[in-house]
Amino acid sequence: MEFSEIVKARYATRSFDGRKVDDKLMDQLMEMVRLAPSSVNLQPWRIKVIHDAHTKQALLPHSWNQPQITSCSHLLVFCADTDLEARAKALYSKMKASGIPDEGVAGFAKMVDGLISSMPPEARLPWAQKQVYLAVANALNGAKSLGLDSCPMEGFIPAEYSKVLHLPAHLVPSVVVPVGYAADTPRPKVRFEKKDVFF
Amino acid sequence: MEFSEIVKARYATRSFDGRKVDDKLMDQLMEMVRLAPSSVNLQPWRIKVIHDAHTKQALLPHSWNQPQITSCSHLLVFCADTDLEARAKALYSKMKASGIPDEGVAGFAKMVDGLISSMPPEARLPWAQKQVYLAVANALNGAKSLGLDSCPMEGFIPAEYSKVLHLPAHLVPSVVVPVGYAADTPRPKVRFEKKDVFF
Repeated sequence: MEFSEIVKARYATRSFDGRKVDDKLMDQLMEMVRLAPSSVNLQPWRIKVIHDAHTKQALLPHSWNQPQITSCSHLLVFCADTDLEARAKALYSKMKASGIPDEGVAGFAKMVDGLISSMPPEARLPWAQKQVYLAVANALNGAKSLGLDSCPMEGFIPAEYSKVLHLPAHLVPSVVVPVGYAADTPRPKVRFEKKDVFF
Repeated sequence: MEFSEIVKARYATRSFDGRKVDDKLMDQLMEMVRLAPSSVNLQPWRIKVIHDAHTKQALLPHSWNQPQITSCSHLLVFCADTDLEARAKALYSKMKASGIPDEGVAGFAKMVDGLISSMPPEARLPWAQKQVYLAVANALNGAKSLGLDSCPMEGFIPAEYSKVLHLPAHLVPSVVVPVGYAADTPRPKVRFEKKDVFF
């Protein structure tokens, strides 16, 4: 499917038919998410993949009882990882292991360490969350490219999700994306005209 | 090109060859951006499209002199639109004009107005910016799907961009995306392993 078709066909699915998505398809979807871009390539995200009915049920009341949560096949909880220093160190190791020369990594690390240390504490979470939305976009478009449906959701209570999922404090649930096979049909897309968006 | 190939082939292009992208291709790219999802469909973004050399040159010193700014064909300045009330009103009108019954629009409006009024003033910009990143992702993937290259950039000074572009206060430059034809080649992608991303 061409990307121009994907962006037309993708829609926020409110109800799934409960069918399980094949593990191989889920692997392909995760690969698309894994390759998402992020500022200075820090990839400040971790994604909890939930497919058991018990956990979905436990999250339902903390998601305004929206039916996508329990009717989907897999629930992806996109968490912002606010431990930027740890993510940066892991990235530098990964770069070295990929064969990038030490001096190249050192120059990059100096720039990234500077960026992180210049960030006020309250700016970390929104910065990491913005990057998360790039990964979310790959999940939404990627799902459609694989014949799957999805729904981006901000309507949930992050602190309750953290409790149910036993998340460490540095991982902040930011967007929830149920994935599966739609049981509803798309409504016509309502978007602002080109002239009201571009100038 | 399949989406799985797009996410592999897309990369942050550091240098463009200066060729101009055809208007018809730019229209196709803008259409993909226009259809991006956003929370409650508010589309809190406006995108300044710059192709004249004079403006690019004026923005260069406010972009750490990164060569993408002047070597690209078109520079897309993604602005978060923080006048959420105005965007919401325009959306309700658009929904009515699309044939959605008044009572449906009224119910939706009540929910969205509640969301906006519950948002502390300092939360508006980051919330709008997060949505902007969904539109940015469509620009990056969309460009590659059209045979174009791009680069997501946070490295610029928003206040200086606002001055050069004479932007009203409610539009905040958030991400800059140069688009064009690459004059460089992609370096190998460095990403965390699946096990370090998904859990």
